[in-house]
Amino acid sequence: MSLALKEAWKRQGLTYPNPVVGALILDKHGKILSIAATQAAGKEHAELKAIEEALITLGDTHISSLQTASQKHAYILSYHDRQLKDASIYVTLEPCTHHGKTPPCSLLIKNCGFKTLICGSIDPNQEASGGIIQLEKAGVTVITDILKADCDTLMTPFKAWQENRPFVFFKLALSANGVYDGGTITSLESRTLVHAMRDNIDFLVIGGETVRSDRPTLDSRLVGGKAPDVLIISRHKEFDRSIPLFSVAGRKVFIEENFDRIKNYRFIMIEGTQSLMKLSDSLVDWYCIFNSSSYKKGKTIQIDKNFTPLQCIQNKHNTITWYKGI
Amino acid sequence: MSLALKEAWKRQGLTYPNPVVGALILDKHGKILSIAATQAAGKEHAELKAIEEALITLGDTHISSLQTASQKHAYILSYHDRQLKDASIYVTLEPCTHHGKTPPCSLLIKNCGFKTLICGSIDPNQEASGGIIQLEKAGVTVITDILKADCDTLMTPFKAWQENRPFVFFKLALSANGVYDGGTITSLESRTLVHAMRDNIDFLVIGGETVRSDRPTLDSRLVGGKAPDVLIISRHKEFDRSIPLFSVAGRKVFIEENFDRIKNYRFIMIEGTQSLMKLSDSLVDWYCIFNSSSYKKGKTIQIDKNFTPLQCIQNKHNTITWYKGI
Repeated sequence: MSLALKEAWKRQGLTYPNPVVGALILDKHGKILSIAATQAAGKEHAELKAIEEALITLGDTHISSLQTASQKHAYILSYHDRQLKDASIYVTLEPCTHHGKTPPCSLLIKNCGFKTLICGSIDPNQEASGGIIQLEKAGVTVITDILKADCDTLMTPFKAWQENRPFVFFKLALSANGVYDGGTITSLESRTLVHAMRDNIDFLVIGGETVRSDRPTLDSRLVGGKAPDVLIISRHKEFDRSIPLFSVAGRKVFIEENFDRIKNYRFIMIEGTQSLMKLSDSLVDWYCIFNSSSYKKGKTIQIDKNFTPLQCIQNKHNTITWYKGI
Repeated sequence: MSLALKEAWKRQGLTYPNPVVGALILDKHGKILSIAATQAAGKEHAELKAIEEALITLGDTHISSLQTASQKHAYILSYHDRQLKDASIYVTLEPCTHHGKTPPCSLLIKNCGFKTLICGSIDPNQEASGGIIQLEKAGVTVITDILKADCDTLMTPFKAWQENRPFVFFKLALSANGVYDGGTITSLESRTLVHAMRDNIDFLVIGGETVRSDRPTLDSRLVGGKAPDVLIISRHKEFDRSIPLFSVAGRKVFIEENFDRIKNYRFIMIEGTQSLMKLSDSLVDWYCIFNSSSYKKGKTIQIDKNFTPLQCIQNKHNTITWYKGI
């Protein structure tokens, strides 16, 4: 389950309004066949992705040629070799039972002949829940509450969505010694991840100073995605309108002194440093800190604040740590 | 192999002059039975620890009552249930063949009936090497060079020991925003790890300013271990001799302006901040940075330097990243 959790955290911030879910499949002897996480909304759920990867591990050469989640679902459901018979699947969240953008995962688990389902969290979504009961009725052994607290934490943004309140995370990039200024801090791989987050959020908040000095576009061109609406926090309303962020078609830009506008949006990323951190303190659910592996001279953030680390992910040049604000 | 590597890095700096090694055992069906790393010098090698843990997973209730590595070796060698027959073992380093403080691991692998050995690095120690050839002769399938570069990097301190040169690592504790001053930074768990490192090193280097302001003991009382010899880097030779570090029985303390004394020692930790970092720049093989999850106001390190991250480990409150100095 901890491997499934780790895999899921790699895609934290990329799957809203779906929960990010991790899944791991063992064959009937206990050998790991696959570890996977939720893809983008409307794409493969973690269970489907894990089953796909497991079949590829077992030699399937057809499934990866299929384009959509529904095609993959249909293929697996009609796939009668039962290669996953008596396998086990760990899932951080109870498998869904509803036909949304993708068919239900519970049907898939049942049809593949899984012997055991090991779950972390129970689905709080009434429409999608019931997967456990359905699978128990079908004769699958179900074990629940494994690393439940960690699995519950993983899907905090999804719970906020369910409870109809905005979820706010603060993204910060620092050098190894805590410097935030002086140009690009993180690697291309990390910046691509931030663009993927921008493609998933619906509102981006940034400070007026940063807009004036960096003249950013604030889109998600590195992943070919959308440009979210932008809130610039600034007392001075005049900006050079040739700054690229103002010229993105279909985007709304607000220039305001406070964060009230956030309540009209659902999944919000604040990209900032010290001043915005101080101003947004009471609004922020989570912090996502990218740390480079360089020491550089420059300005560092000077505030007193305690966090709780949730998960630390390492890519080639940087570490990315998610924290819960206290 | 990457799980074995990760497990080994958790004990980096604690096993010198032995290499830190990671091992993972799969049963004949591919199910993970255990993941383990080298214990302290003279205690269990990674292979022995992994076999012990695997037997416990399989229901053995006797082995954990045995006190020494030799007793465990003898027990496993006389253990004829062959519960690990046809299992596979991943090891970051070729198993040893020599009778040192512990009996050879290759014999253990052969006797247990392992079908496959998967190795990262080849043992550069002529006295201990030959495990692969021996096991191939005994009919074990041996696969080599898996994640070899990463496995080689893991045992850099051991290679320095083999080549008869000192290995120097710089330990630094920072708040999440890079602040190094203002009292204790890291958690008790992390400080206990630092004490275990002090118990393993033979020389500790510290700055005169820190000695004067913190009045440290610089021992390893949190793990009941030894107090290494200390080098205080200082132009001013006068210190208040009531500072606890001077009163540790059997310890040598040197107060010098340079690092020349290092060449008389083998495994050296520098505990410092900005000034010592600048002075020791050309001497340091690796950096070990402890990051807390608090933001605090204070002094931050102001230098320009690039690192290569080697591994990031997370404990409950902190992250610990090992970097190679460039």
